[in-house]
Amino acid sequence: MNLTEETLISDKTETAPLSGLRIVDLSRVLAGPFCTALLAEMGAEVIKIETPGRGDDARQFLPFQGGESGFFMLINKAKKSVTLDLKSPRGVKILHRLVEDADILVANFRPGADARLGADYETLKKINPALVHASISGFGQEGPLSPRPAYDIVAQAMSGLMSITGEADGPPTRVGESMGDLCAGLNACWSILAAIRHRDRTGKGQHLDIAMTDSLISMMVTPLSLQLFANAGPTRTGNRHPISTPFDSFPCRDGYVVIAVANDTLFAKLSTAMGHPELLADSRFATDTARTENEPALRVLVTAWTGERTVDEAVQVLDEAGVPASPILSVAEALASEHVVARGLVTTANHPTAGEIPLVRQPVRFSQWPQGPIAPPPTLGQHTDEVLGAFRDADEIAALRRDGVI
Amino acid sequence: MNLTEETLISDKTETAPLSGLRIVDLSRVLAGPFCTALLAEMGAEVIKIETPGRGDDARQFLPFQGGESGFFMLINKAKKSVTLDLKSPRGVKILHRLVEDADILVANFRPGADARLGADYETLKKINPALVHASISGFGQEGPLSPRPAYDIVAQAMSGLMSITGEADGPPTRVGESMGDLCAGLNACWSILAAIRHRDRTGKGQHLDIAMTDSLISMMVTPLSLQLFANAGPTRTGNRHPISTPFDSFPCRDGYVVIAVANDTLFAKLSTAMGHPELLADSRFATDTARTENEPALRVLVTAWTGERTVDEAVQVLDEAGVPASPILSVAEALASEHVVARGLVTTANHPTAGEIPLVRQPVRFSQWPQGPIAPPPTLGQHTDEVLGAFRDADEIAALRRDGVI
Repeated sequence: MNLTEETLISDKTETAPLSGLRIVDLSRVLAGPFCTALLAEMGAEVIKIETPGRGDDARQFLPFQGGESGFFMLINKAKKSVTLDLKSPRGVKILHRLVEDADILVANFRPGADARLGADYETLKKINPALVHASISGFGQEGPLSPRPAYDIVAQAMSGLMSITGEADGPPTRVGESMGDLCAGLNACWSILAAIRHRDRTGKGQHLDIAMTDSLISMMVTPLSLQLFANAGPTRTGNRHPISTPFDSFPCRDGYVVIAVANDTLFAKLSTAMGHPELLADSRFATDTARTENEPALRVLVTAWTGERTVDEAVQVLDEAGVPASPILSVAEALASEHVVARGLVTTANHPTAGEIPLVRQPVRFSQWPQGPIAPPPTLGQHTDEVLGAFRDADEIAALRRDGVI
Repeated sequence: MNLTEETLISDKTETAPLSGLRIVDLSRVLAGPFCTALLAEMGAEVIKIETPGRGDDARQFLPFQGGESGFFMLINKAKKSVTLDLKSPRGVKILHRLVEDADILVANFRPGADARLGADYETLKKINPALVHASISGFGQEGPLSPRPAYDIVAQAMSGLMSITGEADGPPTRVGESMGDLCAGLNACWSILAAIRHRDRTGKGQHLDIAMTDSLISMMVTPLSLQLFANAGPTRTGNRHPISTPFDSFPCRDGYVVIAVANDTLFAKLSTAMGHPELLADSRFATDTARTENEPALRVLVTAWTGERTVDEAVQVLDEAGVPASPILSVAEALASEHVVARGLVTTANHPTAGEIPLVRQPVRFSQWPQGPIAPPPTLGQHTDEVLGAFRDADEIAALRRDGVI
């Protein structure tokens, strides 16, 4: 295999599920770029618009390799970078020209900021009525909190997610990654493809309004069911499952083991594995409901058993008994684990300046689109000449560069 | 407006983005049903296959309204329910007949279980080569851990997500909702629509392998960047942002306030709002990096200010100063908040037996598909006769029912 990078990219583009879709990507930092990285990896042409000289703020995020941000590179794989000053009328004119040929536009401006740049849907749909325009924000394009800036911790706090994460007697807890941004990004992905299907059948584009808070709220199925159907005020339960027991983490000699017993059959296996078959005859533990009511007593019994073992010992015994159990892996351990390596999630690409870099694949394995090489993330403005060359000649491009528009 | 329910559904089906797509849904409990609920709400016809007499396990989950599970109803909106015993050869024959006319099949069997039922992709693609078949599982269809059952806490533990959630000096913490299931469900959504686009252009269906662990790992962008580009072993930082400071929750007199200061401009506003403009001249706090290095000292200053105020007082002052800040809402407070009410996330539907029930909309607002009524979740087997009536006569259906196949 001596294919050049260009050949690999163009091979992919011919057969990839999303080939033929062109995305103008005005998004920055996390939610929008995460969405467009998935779409780029599946074959869409993503033209990332960046501020001349500086680019996406995420280009400054630690850590770096060869002067390029690892964070930025992970979520800007397989995109093209075009620099364009959207505060300049000439820059906006080029944006509008790009929108003419685009299928999709993705942005995560604070609501209202896009209109000041001439990049709002009302303006762009006049240029391209078939455009699918996705706006991702913290609180959405409408509603009293709409103008507020989007920070993930605020979305986690305002959605109720923090209130249900953490120990029962501890403080509300932020999920250790920006789930508000990322879930909004996933919602942008599917809704864009749904709107593209609608456009393919009707010729009509549309606007998609995706909010981080709405995204998180809509995912909180168990808490929503407790609140809406029982007015039960769901709160924190630590690592305990709210309904099934024992379904929690338990301390071993050298860390924690997770045990997930969700029904009576599994409880029978657990009791036998722990050397306590007499628990099966104990009415306190006869059903999942009874076990949940008597959780403190059961916790003492399980902890007595786990506390005498290492995590590996406990997992091995429970595995052999058919009880779902696992260690709690660090990120380093998860990435190095035999299973994750076998799944091929982490791969590499050759970056034009940073050399060989690690990349993480989008997680879905398509049988008609085998895991192949992924084109690297772009350097700032790497594709400006190529993309603008389709409708501006070399002298015009040189003038734009001289004047700081690109 | 005196439209009957049927009129509303058929009006929607004519113009909805996903109208014309038929989904055979073998999935149970959470990940698969969450995915197909989104697709159903956007106009796909979802035929949910359930075990005769019992149905989806989630029909037993507390709390109930009128004998129906709230959890089940929230994520089975707008679907049809058909009972079918897949352990009976006559049931499998009917499944195969349904697959002939389907565009999509969604399942979340444990890997291998589908083949024992005659519901695996190798079998079904022979019946319908254009079928898009999505399999959601804990660890995916391949890899050493593949046969293990999918429990969300195990996926959170094995992905590394628990290891980065919680206090720095506390235990690894489970996110208070089943994010492994739900993010796998969102990945199923977009990948199904990508594969449908591929099918529409090539005529070829395909298999999609979606794992809860892969889904979570692929979303951990900041920890991945730290591990892959700096080998930095990311761990828990409580509610603190790993890079920006002060970006955390802080104790007030009556709860916690979240403050999100991500740059120098916001820090200047915060310092002034707290009545400490002298902090701007303090070299310990001059840059985001410096503030993160001197986080303990800065925390003392911010906590001294928040500790003298109620959450509402602190949020009001910070709001007026343009500093992103918010209370940490409970689920009840989030749902009752003016903004969430204005967004229209919670709506109602008329269930055939449980009466008026609350439902939560999918979170994306489509401009060409305004928020309208959502068809209710089905009772067990509510649509068996309607769906089977397309290819079985009344006597045959009666015999299937008598023999417990449906």
